[in-house]
Amino acid sequence: MPKAIKVGLLGLGTVGGGVAQLLVQEKQRLSAYLGAELILYRAVDLRPELAQELGLAEGVFTTDAQAVLNDPEVDILVEMIGGLEPARRFILQAIAQGKQVATANKALLAAHGAEIFAAARERRVSIAFEASVGGGIPLVRALRDSLAANRITSCLGILNGTCNFILSRMTAGGEPFAQVLAQAQEMGYAEADPSMDVEGRDTAHKLAIVAALATGRQPNLADIPTEGITRITPLDIQFAGEFGFKVKLLAILNNQGGTVEARVHPALVAQDHLLASVDGPFNALHIDGDWVGQVLLHGRGAGRRPTASAVAGDVLDLARDLTAGCAGRVPPLGTAAQDGRVLPLAPLQEALCRYYFRFTAQDRPGVLAAISRVLGGHGISIQAVIQKGRHQAGPVPIVMLTHQAQEAAVQAALKEIDALPVIAEPTMLIRVA
Amino acid sequence: MPKAIKVGLLGLGTVGGGVAQLLVQEKQRLSAYLGAELILYRAVDLRPELAQELGLAEGVFTTDAQAVLNDPEVDILVEMIGGLEPARRFILQAIAQGKQVATANKALLAAHGAEIFAAARERRVSIAFEASVGGGIPLVRALRDSLAANRITSCLGILNGTCNFILSRMTAGGEPFAQVLAQAQEMGYAEADPSMDVEGRDTAHKLAIVAALATGRQPNLADIPTEGITRITPLDIQFAGEFGFKVKLLAILNNQGGTVEARVHPALVAQDHLLASVDGPFNALHIDGDWVGQVLLHGRGAGRRPTASAVAGDVLDLARDLTAGCAGRVPPLGTAAQDGRVLPLAPLQEALCRYYFRFTAQDRPGVLAAISRVLGGHGISIQAVIQKGRHQAGPVPIVMLTHQAQEAAVQAALKEIDALPVIAEPTMLIRVA
Repeated sequence: MPKAIKVGLLGLGTVGGGVAQLLVQEKQRLSAYLGAELILYRAVDLRPELAQELGLAEGVFTTDAQAVLNDPEVDILVEMIGGLEPARRFILQAIAQGKQVATANKALLAAHGAEIFAAARERRVSIAFEASVGGGIPLVRALRDSLAANRITSCLGILNGTCNFILSRMTAGGEPFAQVLAQAQEMGYAEADPSMDVEGRDTAHKLAIVAALATGRQPNLADIPTEGITRITPLDIQFAGEFGFKVKLLAILNNQGGTVEARVHPALVAQDHLLASVDGPFNALHIDGDWVGQVLLHGRGAGRRPTASAVAGDVLDLARDLTAGCAGRVPPLGTAAQDGRVLPLAPLQEALCRYYFRFTAQDRPGVLAAISRVLGGHGISIQAVIQKGRHQAGPVPIVMLTHQAQEAAVQAALKEIDALPVIAEPTMLIRVA
Repeated sequence: MPKAIKVGLLGLGTVGGGVAQLLVQEKQRLSAYLGAELILYRAVDLRPELAQELGLAEGVFTTDAQAVLNDPEVDILVEMIGGLEPARRFILQAIAQGKQVATANKALLAAHGAEIFAAARERRVSIAFEASVGGGIPLVRALRDSLAANRITSCLGILNGTCNFILSRMTAGGEPFAQVLAQAQEMGYAEADPSMDVEGRDTAHKLAIVAALATGRQPNLADIPTEGITRITPLDIQFAGEFGFKVKLLAILNNQGGTVEARVHPALVAQDHLLASVDGPFNALHIDGDWVGQVLLHGRGAGRRPTASAVAGDVLDLARDLTAGCAGRVPPLGTAAQDGRVLPLAPLQEALCRYYFRFTAQDRPGVLAAISRVLGGHGISIQAVIQKGRHQAGPVPIVMLTHQAQEAAVQAALKEIDALPVIAEPTMLIRVA
């Protein structure tokens, strides 16, 4: 057997703790697979009680991250701290020391991927991040390696389990967002501060990584138009259903040849699209490539065990590079052509979509005509309308599906419509995927 | 740039021709990705007219396979001839010459994988076969690398596009098998001799490969119980629908801890299972791993371009090993622990499933009682029955869903039931997935 491969693990939270458990419990299986002993050599956290909880051997646990980062015995550094600092500093330090790195830190890679990837390339070490997007779903390696011969023309992803769980519940039970969010928090599917998830920022982080893998260039996170699901009402979900759609929070990448589009927002997904069947805490990425056609990858997008599976797969891959003597074999984004330049994104104003509108209008004759006139004036044509009967007092919903239109025209039209005296509330807009 | 990587391609049929086109048309993209020139150096076929059709450069085309196999300039041999011989001989020869090998030849790997993999390990070259199962779906690499930390406890696959196309059509249109098969042949979704597909043998080949990747050991192809879809009638599809199921041809791997089960047969799949939505020519593999949980990989399982995508992904991976100086980095099945021993499979008689039965019985009182008595005598309990009204003369169908039962008991019971004087035709049995 070749020399043992030694892993240093930073962070023993939900996912990091799962990685520790996997490396300890499955040591024999992993070592047999690798043909070399794979050892959890050091595990760092500030909570010493975790050492026993996780069944770590004597001497493995330490509170001293620096000692692990500087230990030349550590071959692979697994960063499971999360957040930007000190994770960024620690990873750069590990790279500088010539260690291979595995991380699940999407926020960090979305913000500082370019810097970290450049450092890894320069030092010729590998950085693996399968667990950063889609939990246990092997989508990073699919985009990076298996589909490498393709130009990836589009990706549509359901990449946040919290949002998908909430939307699935709202769809099944008709309850409002706030109520379902509270349930999700109780069940452990949403954080105490859920804003990173429900505002779409977590999905935007993952989309930044998907876009980088698909195009070889990292976008600026700030350039990704991002909308969450907090505005979505059961009424919209119900009307979408009447039009034959489900409502999902999507990460959207369009790379048809012109400027690349990347955006995150709730979207209407046709009920017979595979993504419409991705329910509850599951995630999926729907990929279109110019040779492969359509591929869908589906699985658990979060959670201790699925994420640990992905991290351990990365660790095995990095370890194999070490036993085969080819550390740094794969550039961070797969392509050797990565030039470190930023991926320019088209502004949202230029997007072409179909739209769902829910107008809230006085229940008076002529309202639909007034709305249609404004839309027509902006070149937006209507595909379908649902106008509910006059069962209640007060304003009523008028729901509409458009043909393809440009975002800028839509925004201008809605501004005009919302200023009409017959319109009682700001209009709800959801784009169609 | 490191030295150029030279590919020798054997066979320019549907898939081989697609690989040639991809390597020629996308040469710049692939070379940039790799950081080294990737050249289609030689392409072998017996039909010289293909050289021009495929736009091959002067000197690339040859009819002389031996010249290519013996050419030390060829780094990677891509075998796209199909069939057992001479493909087996050519691959062994390429391995002996120290070339890396990519193949899509499932029949060959299912029959002679052990021999070929052993040769590759011994000579320390890599053999890649992503395209052998599931066309463009990156499932081989998922099982081999990404999910390597898991014990794969189960795989359920729809792995034959022809059968899935036929069953989807029969489900949508209610037409009989023979008629839909003829349509499929006309549309190019079925071969002139469709037996390899519709008898389930192609699926068994693929299951043998999936089982090897999931367990590290190859089963004997002859040990895989294999049934095709030729017996399936629109009536069964309709009754299955009434019970809440679709009928799919499945590759089934069960690896729960005891003896491994692997079998191919039509099966009832619950309508809300993701596999039930895999329609037409699409393929999918549903994987269960002890850490990752459930993963579904879905895409085009056949066809020139998707399969070429998978082969080219393999070629890039092999080429990267060469540029990084680590040829043979990954053992053929991923695991270094592959011992060349055969994977023992449980006999079908021991299988535990739920069953769908369609009895064809005289329309007489007491028939259901007689059938139930026999089933009860063999310890088989009934979950649901549909007995259609007496609208026609002659025998009538009685359809039944059982609770879990053992195959041996079921076979014995059906033998007894089919001998009852009230039973007009042999009973139809479909297992529930």
